Amino acid sequence: MENLQNEYLFPEIFMREFLHTQKYPHARVIRLGIGNTTEPIPDIITSAMAEESKGGLLTVNLAEESGRRNLNETHLTVNKGIMGVDQTYYANRDDMRASLFTMETESRSTQKHAHALSTVEGYRGYGAEQGHMALRMSIAQRFYKNMGIEGNEVFVSDGAQCDISRLQMLFGSNVTVAVQDPSFPAYIDSSVIAGRAGNFQEETGKYKNIVYLNCRPENNFFPDLSTASRADLIFFCSPNNPTGNAASWHQLKQLVEFAKANGSIIVYDSSYAAYISDGSPRSIYEIPGAREVAIEISSFSKFAGFTGVRLGWTVVPEELLYANGFPVIKDYNRIVCTCFNGASNIAQAGGLACLSAEGYQAITNVVDYYKENAKIIIDTFRALGLKVYGGKNAPYIWVHFPGLSSWDVFNQILEKTHIVTIPGKGFGPAGEGYIRVGAFGHRETILEASARLKNFFVTDNI
Amino acid sequence: MENLQNEYLFPEIFMREFLHTQKYPHARVIRLGIGNTTEPIPDIITSAMAEESKGGLLTVNLAEESGRRNLNETHLTVNKGIMGVDQTYYANRDDMRASLFTMETESRSTQKHAHALSTVEGYRGYGAEQGHMALRMSIAQRFYKNMGIEGNEVFVSDGAQCDISRLQMLFGSNVTVAVQDPSFPAYIDSSVIAGRAGNFQEETGKYKNIVYLNCRPENNFFPDLSTASRADLIFFCSPNNPTGNAASWHQLKQLVEFAKANGSIIVYDSSYAAYISDGSPRSIYEIPGAREVAIEISSFSKFAGFTGVRLGWTVVPEELLYANGFPVIKDYNRIVCTCFNGASNIAQAGGLACLSAEGYQAITNVVDYYKENAKIIIDTFRALGLKVYGGKNAPYIWVHFPGLSSWDVFNQILEKTHIVTIPGKGFGPAGEGYIRVGAFGHRETILEASARLKNFFVTDNI
Repeated sequence: MENLQNEYLFPEIFMREFLHTQKYPHARVIRLGIGNTTEPIPDIITSAMAEESKGGLLTVNLAEESGRRNLNETHLTVNKGIMGVDQTYYANRDDMRASLFTMETESRSTQKHAHALSTVEGYRGYGAEQGHMALRMSIAQRFYKNMGIEGNEVFVSDGAQCDISRLQMLFGSNVTVAVQDPSFPAYIDSSVIAGRAGNFQEETGKYKNIVYLNCRPENNFFPDLSTASRADLIFFCSPNNPTGNAASWHQLKQLVEFAKANGSIIVYDSSYAAYISDGSPRSIYEIPGAREVAIEISSFSKFAGFTGVRLGWTVVPEELLYANGFPVIKDYNRIVCTCFNGASNIAQAGGLACLSAEGYQAITNVVDYYKENAKIIIDTFRALGLKVYGGKNAPYIWVHFPGLSSWDVFNQILEKTHIVTIPGKGFGPAGEGYIRVGAFGHRETILEASARLKNFFVTDNI
Repeated sequence: MENLQNEYLFPEIFMREFLHTQKYPHARVIRLGIGNTTEPIPDIITSAMAEESKGGLLTVNLAEESGRRNLNETHLTVNKGIMGVDQTYYANRDDMRASLFTMETESRSTQKHAHALSTVEGYRGYGAEQGHMALRMSIAQRFYKNMGIEGNEVFVSDGAQCDISRLQMLFGSNVTVAVQDPSFPAYIDSSVIAGRAGNFQEETGKYKNIVYLNCRPENNFFPDLSTASRADLIFFCSPNNPTGNAASWHQLKQLVEFAKANGSIIVYDSSYAAYISDGSPRSIYEIPGAREVAIEISSFSKFAGFTGVRLGWTVVPEELLYANGFPVIKDYNRIVCTCFNGASNIAQAGGLACLSAEGYQAITNVVDYYKENAKIIIDTFRALGLKVYGGKNAPYIWVHFPGLSSWDVFNQILEKTHIVTIPGKGFGPAGEGYIRVGAFGHRETILEASARLKNFFVTDNI
């Protein structure tokens, strides 16, 4: 812990915003810093959650349905279990619940009237640690169609950030780590906490034992893998936070081949995949062979405005093996059962509603709204003559201020326009000279920010 | 991971139940195994959660209220922050939100009509990683009155089991661990995953580097600390899972003194405190000096039937310091910000409703219901001439079968009565010869279980 250089980036940004509001108590601060969603969650989804807590059978029926479909597979697996291969990640509480034997609870849940957590019929306690099977199967179906991912390979969680730490626990402290530079700070900070980062080196701004994969406009935001050092784990986020850049199919193919050649495991973060507009891959599993080398983490946060509701998932394919041939999925299942106890059943009901046809359309509209915001921000900075990246496949815009300190730019913009952004250096040494601007906000706020920025840069150039 | 001996206990029990239902598809299985709550959540609480997802301002008003009360403290602390002492665990997002400056969101949230996640006015994204300040303060007030615990020392989470792992991350792999024997298996299993347990020794059934504190009827379920080995961390659960025994004030005083003398940190698990009937301490902080040596983890799961909703908390007192004088709370705050992102806002709204006067009364009634169940189970086994422990201060009954293997007893009872229990050995070597019977169930189920047990033991004695 002592090795950590600073407070975690986002609370630090909050603190600076807070101090700013103390200095300027009447300023109307605009927050384009933390990637915090602002638009309402479509009613179809909140209704599903309210019904989970107040009444309604939406998810139970679905779970029963998929339970039936899944029954044969479950039986098979349990039989494998008897033969000495433990497969509890199949035969979990939900599979059992879904199997509709004459168990107490089950006989009740087949009653066809409204259920609720406040009724004897509708109450549900612990769910499966791995998530409701109906939701796991819906995620597999919605995001990984034709990629060979099954529901039992999807582990539902309370968010991607939490899953990063659970993966760190999985791999222990004797592994080496590579990250994109710049990247979401939790990859490095959780590696430091796990004790595998080595000392921080002031001169480079890097941790000694972490491999930094340079991702700048000069190299199309993709590292030169022919010269990159090997690492056991490669954290790779696409569309990238903070640069907003989505890796192409050919780039990801190189990455998969690099991992395969080096015996590395890719931890692929697709939390922003819903924002992709240009046909770039939305999942690492679009790349042939990725099932053998990659874990994928993802989230409902930016996709469905669930930042506060808390829901995400991690995919661990069965083909992913340790060097000794043992399947990683078995260990990850053990971590999930021991160190986690499932996502909130209410959040899961909301997640399932997001994946229905109507729910999916509704949240796609919200994503489109943020993408429109991003376009306004891009146009604003371009009009000011600045080089701008991202925003097309992600809700983040990466603005270049050549030769300037990113913390100075952050401070200047905050001081003069009361707009909170994030200094690029917070995401790694390669972020120096950049700021990240988020596209989350009500339209009128984004337009107001645009006007302030134009005014500031014209009258008071940085 | 390879060092782990078995699957995690509870999925293993599920698997056995599942196989049993395959063997006897028409049996009506009664589950007194996993401590899974069965009774509906009182409507006042589910309404609060439904309103968090559908509408309503219950928690926002409370948050604003307590925000106001907390405002001076927040300012003070931020000022300390400027003076070089980082205190971001105070000045979090909620404090800022509560401070009611003229920020965008805040100006909206003061509108006095209904808010909802589906409305522009009511939508909320990320909350504080540490939990809503109103909930943190309510927990401090409800459970730690006159014990000197403040809201900022309470970290809201998605459950005690998850917090155990976050604490394991906090302390790294070079610490030694002591546990009660028997105890909740997550303490040991998460220690094994963290790499600090050493090898498993078949002959003793113990991990080499873990200190097992013997807790049996013979020693009043409290270890002889005069002969106990020192450990850096002592996991201590009271009322204990599985024995159901609550430690007395004098026993806990010994424990605190032992920790103080040895420079140990106690991780005190009070998840079952709501079940205490006999005046035993409900918190370690009832013991003088505990603030300097103890962390307390606790949960809404068994207290409010939130097993599926997922809500818990951890208290880290400011006086708790590492050997070098650094406050543990700062590192724990960093873990929470980096490896966690806050409990679901909907679950938190439910938690706050549980702590209102009306909500608290309603859930106390549910706890009393389970305690009545426990009494029925105790009477059943006593009538059969067996020695029975626990059940008075906890929803678990610990039944002694002298000289028998606990897995054999488990299997026999399941085979002959279709009742699922848990074999004591699953909780550690000192659990051999016992089974744990849970008191969670509908009354008619418990009565049916009682009848089956009486019939079995009379006609077909074990």
